Amino acid sequence: MIILQTQNFIHEASLSSLLSTLEKHAYLADETGQTQPESLRALRSSGLLGSIIPTEYGGKGETIWFASKLIEQLATVDPSIAIVVHQHLLVVTSLLNKGSEKQKRTYLPKLSSGEWIAASAWSETGSGAGKQTVGTKNDEGNWVINGVKTFTTGAGLADLYLVLVQTVSSDAGTEAAQHGQTFFLIEKEQVVAVDTQSGLSGMRGSSTRFIEFHRSVLTSDHILGEVGGSVELKIALRESGLTLGAISVGISEAAFRIALDYVERKGLAASQSLQVRLSELHMWIDAARALVDKVAERSSDNLKLSASQSKILASEVSEKVCREVQQIVGGTGYMRGHKIERLYRDARGVSLMGPVNYLAREMVGREIVSEPFRF
Amino acid sequence: MIILQTQNFIHEASLSSLLSTLEKHAYLADETGQTQPESLRALRSSGLLGSIIPTEYGGKGETIWFASKLIEQLATVDPSIAIVVHQHLLVVTSLLNKGSEKQKRTYLPKLSSGEWIAASAWSETGSGAGKQTVGTKNDEGNWVINGVKTFTTGAGLADLYLVLVQTVSSDAGTEAAQHGQTFFLIEKEQVVAVDTQSGLSGMRGSSTRFIEFHRSVLTSDHILGEVGGSVELKIALRESGLTLGAISVGISEAAFRIALDYVERKGLAASQSLQVRLSELHMWIDAARALVDKVAERSSDNLKLSASQSKILASEVSEKVCREVQQIVGGTGYMRGHKIERLYRDARGVSLMGPVNYLAREMVGREIVSEPFRF
Repeated sequence: MIILQTQNFIHEASLSSLLSTLEKHAYLADETGQTQPESLRALRSSGLLGSIIPTEYGGKGETIWFASKLIEQLATVDPSIAIVVHQHLLVVTSLLNKGSEKQKRTYLPKLSSGEWIAASAWSETGSGAGKQTVGTKNDEGNWVINGVKTFTTGAGLADLYLVLVQTVSSDAGTEAAQHGQTFFLIEKEQVVAVDTQSGLSGMRGSSTRFIEFHRSVLTSDHILGEVGGSVELKIALRESGLTLGAISVGISEAAFRIALDYVERKGLAASQSLQVRLSELHMWIDAARALVDKVAERSSDNLKLSASQSKILASEVSEKVCREVQQIVGGTGYMRGHKIERLYRDARGVSLMGPVNYLAREMVGREIVSEPFRF
Repeated sequence: MIILQTQNFIHEASLSSLLSTLEKHAYLADETGQTQPESLRALRSSGLLGSIIPTEYGGKGETIWFASKLIEQLATVDPSIAIVVHQHLLVVTSLLNKGSEKQKRTYLPKLSSGEWIAASAWSETGSGAGKQTVGTKNDEGNWVINGVKTFTTGAGLADLYLVLVQTVSSDAGTEAAQHGQTFFLIEKEQVVAVDTQSGLSGMRGSSTRFIEFHRSVLTSDHILGEVGGSVELKIALRESGLTLGAISVGISEAAFRIALDYVERKGLAASQSLQVRLSELHMWIDAARALVDKVAERSSDNLKLSASQSKILASEVSEKVCREVQQIVGGTGYMRGHKIERLYRDARGVSLMGPVNYLAREMVGREIVSEPFRF
């Protein structure tokens, strides 16, 4: 684990202890569809949630690369918790990018200490470019938010939500609709998390649910960035170096280790056919991780494209690796309760997360032909 | 071109001038199977051949990463010359690793200035682990070398050859045979380059030929490293950061640009189908390059495996990219004289270069199951 050599705040023992707690409760989280309180407690007290927050706000001042490697490690034991952390750090990054000094002082210390967990709420069902979660100004000049968000990771367990709200009518055409969207920081008291059971196929410990806003009234202090400034913030996030690909790489690594352990335990190491299959899987993992690392280091020549590509590649590699490892392990790996069975379902989740891989390909393709291209 | 931002000795103008000379003569080199004198002259005078040689030996003291990016750039215009440079730098790296001070003082200044080009001669036809190029000691204590080497890149044009010679009988079994092999530095006067025409399908400007040794007599000063020390040197080269994958990445980039230019010129940029196909190719190139860069930076956690994987992945990606670009361009790209037709044949070459990709997969697979594994 490379992270243990470079960290300066999570000691090997405490990271190992967090990983072992997560591993222990991941099965029950998946089985019940409930994030386990023991996992959350261990996460909150780990110091990890403040990793990339500057020390002046109570954080550890680590780099995005560091956070990315940590998320990768978390995903080797519990991809659901890894995605919760990823979403938390996206909100943190947004605050660092666009937050007012007052917002930073209000939220970052709590998000650093683990007292608060943050979640993002962007998705809606079938709404296309325009959003149906609408914010309008009331007579006192405050904002009133109404609507429903789907697939909110950390719903119910988060203390702060970054919510994408339509603040200019979405009838104005696609581009105008997108530029009429605003991010709001909304505390849990104003949010209703709807489902209590997870209906997801995988990532069942991530508390990914619907949330609703019933006439939530917010002052302008809750706007992150400018009114209508959501596009700019989304671009900044895409180039932040945080990529969902890190989770997929962790899943792939965990799956690969399952195959390796199986081959050793069953005395199959001399099979050249298995050796070559392992070599093939290792190659894909190595490539996906190299691209994810390059994005996390922000050293790509075209960070915007590479960020999207890293998510597409790593998620599809992890699906392929999980499938092949399940083939190697055989029927046992098809049983609920076997880790590879869970990992395979979790792996599918990343390919479906926004932007879903086909949409991401369309975005990248459009950018390749329409912007001055550089390698 | 990232290289132009980081270089400290090749100015943008002189690199551009080298690339344009190479591009201009690459077609004729391919057509005739002869490395073109203009290309060689431009290469020798570029300063590039001494890039990674320390300044005390007349070089530029650049990193392997720098050399790797340069080779990638050369391959975008002429993969044949890129492979000549790659082989030259492998010999340079070997000298830096294992050369005596006397050998370094003798050879490195000439290899720095471009007065000399170096080549490697390892391969033999059908000889397996043991080599048929044999060195024996004569009564004066000198070595007498006899034998034939196949696929020697730069044969006939090189001034210095690094030659793998069997110095203990190869009848002693596979492992003993490999440990009975020694590298010799042999100057061109003692080497006969056999073919004068290239019979290769691609990489036809690389002067890759048979060479022969007819009772070449050499003092022990010509041994690089120890007698029987070839295995150690091969391992060091594998972990040097130089990977043939850099050439494949350059080929892929050049092919991709052909598709991009075609799509623009033909007014096809609005085709979403083409956009998505371009996005897919770009993703594979991005991944291959990320892995090659990681090897060149020597920042992989398992450099030995990643080095092999980078060559396998990048070469197969370049074949796929060339094929797809030929499909996009259509029949014109199937004509001799079209760059994509040449690049596709050149791309195949890297997959076949030693160790050929299937053998490399077997090596990696064996290492995965037999050594303590770490990601």
